Amino acid sequence: MKAGYLQFKPELLKPDDNTEKVKHLINSFTNEFDLLVLPELANSGYLFTSVDEAIRVSETVGTGIFSKMLAEIAQKRNVWIVSGLCERAGDKLFNSAVLVSPKGEFKTYRKTHLFLEEKLWFSPGNTGLNVFEINGKFGNVKLGIMICFDWIFPEAARTLALNGAQIIAHPSNLVLSYCQQAMFTRAVENRVFTITANRTGTEKNGNKELYFTGKSVIVDPKGNYLSTAPQADEFIDVVEIEPKNSLNKQVTSMNNIFDDRRTELYK
Amino acid sequence: MKAGYLQFKPELLKPDDNTEKVKHLINSFTNEFDLLVLPELANSGYLFTSVDEAIRVSETVGTGIFSKMLAEIAQKRNVWIVSGLCERAGDKLFNSAVLVSPKGEFKTYRKTHLFLEEKLWFSPGNTGLNVFEINGKFGNVKLGIMICFDWIFPEAARTLALNGAQIIAHPSNLVLSYCQQAMFTRAVENRVFTITANRTGTEKNGNKELYFTGKSVIVDPKGNYLSTAPQADEFIDVVEIEPKNSLNKQVTSMNNIFDDRRTELYK
Repeated sequence: MKAGYLQFKPELLKPDDNTEKVKHLINSFTNEFDLLVLPELANSGYLFTSVDEAIRVSETVGTGIFSKMLAEIAQKRNVWIVSGLCERAGDKLFNSAVLVSPKGEFKTYRKTHLFLEEKLWFSPGNTGLNVFEINGKFGNVKLGIMICFDWIFPEAARTLALNGAQIIAHPSNLVLSYCQQAMFTRAVENRVFTITANRTGTEKNGNKELYFTGKSVIVDPKGNYLSTAPQADEFIDVVEIEPKNSLNKQVTSMNNIFDDRRTELYK
Repeated sequence: MKAGYLQFKPELLKPDDNTEKVKHLINSFTNEFDLLVLPELANSGYLFTSVDEAIRVSETVGTGIFSKMLAEIAQKRNVWIVSGLCERAGDKLFNSAVLVSPKGEFKTYRKTHLFLEEKLWFSPGNTGLNVFEINGKFGNVKLGIMICFDWIFPEAARTLALNGAQIIAHPSNLVLSYCQQAMFTRAVENRVFTITANRTGTEKNGNKELYFTGKSVIVDPKGNYLSTAPQADEFIDVVEIEPKNSLNKQVTSMNNIFDDRRTELYK
């Protein structure tokens, strides 16, 4: 299976520009792939200063321009895409990630653990930590999704893995570099593949400014970094992975990291 | 508070030699310290090939020669010591760690997650993942203990941290180097200090052989490595830490890593 990420710099508050940019970046990448992960809030940028701004750049899953562009590419290329999206659902906003199928169908994960001022614009995710089946010539594979700050809670990746995730797609807008280093642990402790698609660049809005740390990473179930992106450049990378390798939870002949859990002793 | 570790090479099946060796190594270290962590199975070595061997080198907490030596040092130096110990309790053996107080009193943690053939010699720990209060001129500090392979289960360090642990003492006999890298995550995700005291050297027993990876590490709640030992040398190191820094679970002004947990969504 060929899985990868697109690391880029979304333009703040410019969903039209971001739609064109992502379309151009993916179309320019002519290598084959089965699954591509994009950063958090890829349609909208990150650094809002009001709910109004967030509303203005939000869209409904499947019907907004960014969604439609993703579906078009997914169908044309016969691929699966995971992308962060500023989602409007009724009168609520969510920091979401959509999974788009080669048929142009959508599944949605809504960020469980909101970071900093996201709490002012978004409702906490209400989808839970679910796993989606993706399929193709690579077989049937279970995909979990978490978004950015979800990483710091070991329970998030753990829950996805216990739910059967073989790959964790991880759209991100990371401002520190802790996570890229910690994904080693998330992969090893759960024996899963992880794909952290981070963004790059600096955003300014009013007197606020944020720098994003790039360095998107793909880690395999044994903790090998299969891909590491540069810090500041836009970058797309696809690697060959064998999702079946995530099904073996034996770390030794006598230790299965799931069966060996002693849940009666855990908080 | 001055906290550290003694990394050394226990001699397999030679509790008398190990008692003398540890006594000599600590007595030769004249710097002040408040807490010192020793490796897993520091009295016995690791690579048993039969229950009989394990029984032969086991001791009862507090009354065996290794325990008595630790208590003598703890009292004389007015310090706290955590050490791995091959423990006999009635007709059972445990892969344990003792906490010895400056008064020569003992608390015991029994390894929750047994690794490989340890399952053949030891009973699974029945103490749970408890936290012990230690005190002195450094104030009152809560100390959790986990042993070696416990590290790979995020629930172990998490449970200790939720129980209030400010420092996790982590006696180890690591044969891979995953753990030293992953302790970054354990420290950051729980905002605790971790002290991994690993052993060095190679053990041979019959046709079996194991190499231990040294590189003991102390990590602070922000993921800084305060100490890293060499791979093959015996090494003792003590660093100044401020345990209070582990009490602040705010990673941003709006994010408390404990309060932000959404346990209703976790498995």
